[in-house]
Amino acid sequence: MIIVMSPNATKRNIDNVIKKLERLNLRTHLSEGEDRTIVGVIGDKKIIANLEMEMMAGVEKTVRITEKYKLVSRDFHPLNTIVDVGGVKIGGDEIVIMAGPCAVENFEQLRETAQAVKNCGAKILRGGAFKPRTSPYDFQGLGEEGLKILREVADEFDLKVVTEVVDRGDIELVENYSDILQVGARNMQNFQMLKALGESKKPIMLKRGLSATISEWLNAAEYIMNGGNENVIFCERGIRTYETFTRNTLDLSAVAAIKELSHLPIVVDPSHGTGRRAMVAPMSRAAIAAGADALMIEVHPHPEIALSDGNQSLTPEDFKNLMENLSDIAKAVGRIL
Amino acid sequence: MIIVMSPNATKRNIDNVIKKLERLNLRTHLSEGEDRTIVGVIGDKKIIANLEMEMMAGVEKTVRITEKYKLVSRDFHPLNTIVDVGGVKIGGDEIVIMAGPCAVENFEQLRETAQAVKNCGAKILRGGAFKPRTSPYDFQGLGEEGLKILREVADEFDLKVVTEVVDRGDIELVENYSDILQVGARNMQNFQMLKALGESKKPIMLKRGLSATISEWLNAAEYIMNGGNENVIFCERGIRTYETFTRNTLDLSAVAAIKELSHLPIVVDPSHGTGRRAMVAPMSRAAIAAGADALMIEVHPHPEIALSDGNQSLTPEDFKNLMENLSDIAKAVGRIL
Amino acid sequence: MIIVMSPNATKRNIDNVIKKLERLNLRTHLSEGEDRTIVGVIGDKKIIANLEMEMMAGVEKTVRITEKYKLVSRDFHPLNTIVDVGGVKIGGDEIVIMAGPCAVENFEQLRETAQAVKNCGAKILRGGAFKPRTSPYDFQGLGEEGLKILREVADEFDLKVVTEVVDRGDIELVENYSDILQVGARNMQNFQMLKALGESKKPIMLKRGLSATISEWLNAAEYIMNGGNENVIFCERGIRTYETFTRNTLDLSAVAAIKELSHLPIVVDPSHGTGRRAMVAPMSRAAIAAGADALMIEVHPHPEIALSDGNQSLTPEDFKNLMENLSDIAKAVGRIL
Amino acid sequence: MIIVMSPNATKRNIDNVIKKLERLNLRTHLSEGEDRTIVGVIGDKKIIANLEMEMMAGVEKTVRITEKYKLVSRDFHPLNTIVDVGGVKIGGDEIVIMAGPCAVENFEQLRETAQAVKNCGAKILRGGAFKPRTSPYDFQGLGEEGLKILREVADEFDLKVVTEVVDRGDIELVENYSDILQVGARNMQNFQMLKALGESKKPIMLKRGLSATISEWLNAAEYIMNGGNENVIFCERGIRTYETFTRNTLDLSAVAAIKELSHLPIVVDPSHGTGRRAMVAPMSRAAIAAGADALMIEVHPHPEIALSDGNQSLTPEDFKNLMENLSDIAKAVGRIL
Repeated sequence: MIIVMSPNATKRNIDNVIKKLERLNLRTHLSEGEDRTIVGVIGDKKIIANLEMEMMAGVEKTVRITEKYKLVSRDFHPLNTIVDVGGVKIGGDEIVIMAGPCAVENFEQLRETAQAVKNCGAKILRGGAFKPRTSPYDFQGLGEEGLKILREVADEFDLKVVTEVVDRGDIELVENYSDILQVGARNMQNFQMLKALGESKKPIMLKRGLSATISEWLNAAEYIMNGGNENVIFCERGIRTYETFTRNTLDLSAVAAIKELSHLPIVVDPSHGTGRRAMVAPMSRAAIAAGADALMIEVHPHPEIALSDGNQSLTPEDFKNLMENLSDIAKAVGRIL
Repeated sequence: MIIVMSPNATKRNIDNVIKKLERLNLRTHLSEGEDRTIVGVIGDKKIIANLEMEMMAGVEKTVRITEKYKLVSRDFHPLNTIVDVGGVKIGGDEIVIMAGPCAVENFEQLRETAQAVKNCGAKILRGGAFKPRTSPYDFQGLGEEGLKILREVADEFDLKVVTEVVDRGDIELVENYSDILQVGARNMQNFQMLKALGESKKPIMLKRGLSATISEWLNAAEYIMNGGNENVIFCERGIRTYETFTRNTLDLSAVAAIKELSHLPIVVDPSHGTGRRAMVAPMSRAAIAAGADALMIEVHPHPEIALSDGNQSLTPEDFKNLMENLSDIAKAVGRIL
Repeated sequence: MIIVMSPNATKRNIDNVIKKLERLNLRTHLSEGEDRTIVGVIGDKKIIANLEMEMMAGVEKTVRITEKYKLVSRDFHPLNTIVDVGGVKIGGDEIVIMAGPCAVENFEQLRETAQAVKNCGAKILRGGAFKPRTSPYDFQGLGEEGLKILREVADEFDLKVVTEVVDRGDIELVENYSDILQVGARNMQNFQMLKALGESKKPIMLKRGLSATISEWLNAAEYIMNGGNENVIFCERGIRTYETFTRNTLDLSAVAAIKELSHLPIVVDPSHGTGRRAMVAPMSRAAIAAGADALMIEVHPHPEIALSDGNQSLTPEDFKNLMENLSDIAKAVGRIL
Repeated sequence: MIIVMSPNATKRNIDNVIKKLERLNLRTHLSEGEDRTIVGVIGDKKIIANLEMEMMAGVEKTVRITEKYKLVSRDFHPLNTIVDVGGVKIGGDEIVIMAGPCAVENFEQLRETAQAVKNCGAKILRGGAFKPRTSPYDFQGLGEEGLKILREVADEFDLKVVTEVVDRGDIELVENYSDILQVGARNMQNFQMLKALGESKKPIMLKRGLSATISEWLNAAEYIMNGGNENVIFCERGIRTYETFTRNTLDLSAVAAIKELSHLPIVVDPSHGTGRRAMVAPMSRAAIAAGADALMIEVHPHPEIALSDGNQSLTPEDFKNLMENLSDIAKAVGRIL
């Protein structure tokens, strides 16, 4: 850490800063400039990571050289982590496809979808049973009934299940039915839930918050890993910007960023990420080319009567066309699909 | 609602749309343009509010004429709501001041702060016992111990208490100690918690999410009111933008927006909203001038050793100076302080 | 266009709106709802495109069904436009590579770069002679001297030239040396310059503004086409968001958006778009997968002594590695490189 | 400046950095941490301001301690600058009101407006003759004819004139008619025009760019001052965010930021800043409370037929009501109106 003293910091201010650091067994390095002094701080990383010096008299600002997260960092774990979801491996050579409707509406809808996506090569079935909706008057999901349908249908077609958990109190319930627990964008910084998920035995898929920085996202994953759960999967799902043509702005550079900073795998959700059906195919191709380990795609047998997110859902036929297209891209980046 | 059909919608597409609407007892109004047809929808507001037509074949987009929220809307309740916090009235003629440290650190720190702010005219004591922090390695708050300190100190100085609840499971606990339950920015769309707060008897202060639109914020409040709790107070605390000079961008136009669209009172938090101590005074003045009903200000007896947010905390002396300044502004907009 | 009258619009307000529209030979369609009236407007697109009704008494808002741009729209020109730059075709089957330094610094630097990028398959040489810089104390470019170097070096290696024009008064000068005139992000809405470029015979590469919407970008291109110049090429170069890890947020969904809405070709600039050298390769791959027609990449023989943007420049060797990688991706999307 | 070397920087990398700095007569200060070395740079501020070290081998990042701008900085000029516009002083005790229509449409429209705003206390008449419009098919302004009307009407009512210049080539023309030259948001980084305005004898009002940071804005002003023109006035007019309820997000914290960092005066434009007529009054009050030196307000005698921006224009009567309200606020912050 570097501490920039203000131009009118007194000698005593500087001495106090140094004393505080020395008391913590940190070494300091003074650099006296023309109009201000800079204090470099050297020593135990963990102590430095937790230092808060900004408010000491005479301190103008501090500059962190290293981030606070550790367990998620590639520095601490140089090799890629592969998350094993009951035999389906995310983060290895194979690009994994997760597909299904935004919300589980009924048995028939899900079964029809599951059959279609399984036939095209999807390995994991998605579908919301608890739906976080902007308005209390919108469809809120089927709850446990939806979870049961998910499990039954997935088992019939030998698929794994990913579904969202929206409250700390529901974790155990969702664990009973789902292979991956999804943390939605709105809960990325629901820290109490993240802590509880750290104790889960199931892999966690952590969606990026609506306007979360890469650093905040990594720190949110650190909450889960710090609790003891090492199976965290990131999911880029678009960020909030000024643009209104798309529902969100899908940030594919986040894939490259996560691959650089962390060892954990990353999924891309081009359906929520764009909110426009016609963009799902080009953004799926681009996501794989950028290095994504998996895709999460909304498919609905009858999008025109979908209870949520119909706008961005593919029909089973759209999905089939997409899948045929993706394996060439996967091959071009040395992956298989 | 207006349904814009795409230029290549077929006659059958249009008929299907109309049939679906008629089945819901809604009336329709066709307007056939040069290259596309527009369908106006008339009838029961609640049914229209919940319509999701975007995915029917041939539909290009829909335009909502009315928002989904009702209970929070000024249309449904033209007069200002005054929230009564044990005799302290928020939303009336008086500008209410909430002040205190970011986090409760210990009894002495809080008592010293409470005494100081009480002397200057604050009516409500703030202080976090459960702190949502970006990193798991940052100070997470004292928990119930902090709540006890808050209550004891507030009672000594005849102050009311506002403090944050960060998990649905903690609501009852926090209700035991606090007069207002605060929902933080990161939990604005923690819908399970909002539903549970709808059943609380205590007033709720709902902070605006990091990048929440005005409409999403009103809908979040609708979750609480829909649950039966009519005492909701908004709190503008800055939004996330590209600007890095300030910690957030304090959106004072949100005050005018809330006053136009809703009957509920609104508080402004210039401390989090700017993240810079020197900006707290000018932004406090501006907030009152814009129509805010209350201010929430961070005060710490020794900001240089604060465990969180020291950068933006006022000293008791700064706070005293600020308060002396604000009553003239309040008077200029017909309020008292 | 749809005109939404406010709930308290009077009959006279509505009559006035209708009268104004009828005077313009537009037909109207009334839809009287429970609490408000909606007026649909039908007739000559161009007249409707220019209507401004928002301020008439009783009008709450208007909703445009069609955008104002025409010449750039795929509706008016369904087939892809291929821009011919002296034989190098942008928008056809071949992915075109533009490469070179951020700024032309001297003859040797440019010649070394040109030779290297030519050898790897680049067709167009980039390099700034007029540099828009945030601070007046930063290097501002070599001006005409830089243009001369660009031309001479490009001719030696049989490359085409793209370089930026930063002022209406310099257009003629830049036309003398360059094959494509680049409009930078900061000038995307310098409408006087756009109008003047409409009269140029050279193709224009129009970079997206720092925070321009897709619609504003298309309208900016409309200024150029409306002036008579049909050879417009879009260039996505990242937008401004709250994220600070990358210099900008490269919006690859813009590629899909432009392809859907317009017939004009689009280039992606992953160097400015990310500002990080390590991200240039993955984002180049993703851009081609998303449907980009060309890439613009910063290459500098000695990035460590570059006068600008060294952080994001590839060395000739990096560039060579990248190029070897891209042809497989191009093939996977049915293009050649 | 601080140079952070990467963890795998070699001794030679570090030596090269130091040599380069020493060649420039700068002193260095090494701080060797556990896993990386930090180089502090001390010496001539101007040389340091222009250093670009980011690309040297082994350099991870650099941290600037001081900004590049100087002439606009309060550090270089501690006292407030008062800009004298033919006797009307901006930046002194008096809050100055600029008012008028968005665009000059004809003599009668402007005369009616001018008379009304003069009667209520406005000192400066605004009105666009050259209008930057998103679409080429929108009204582009009356050009020189508009300038003539502005001058004639302003002289009749003893008002000063502020109007926008949109191209370097028009500066002389606009100088002939206007007392203040306005740089619009879209031209804030039209550096060629800024340089030319540095040679003008007229005060310049520099609007903040659509998504300009405070630092970029100050640097843009530095271009003008560096050219020799010391009479620069900032104008906050709202920034671009994700929010759609308002046209822009008016950033009143920018007023406090400019007052802290610069000695130059600042105007607030609540009309463009919000785009909603009902918000102009509360935001005007808030702007003065935040410390603004002047307001710029759109007034149109018949907003319902305005050729541009009718949505946000006040009628003369609205304006009269607003003005009566503002003087109390001005008094409360020690100013006069």
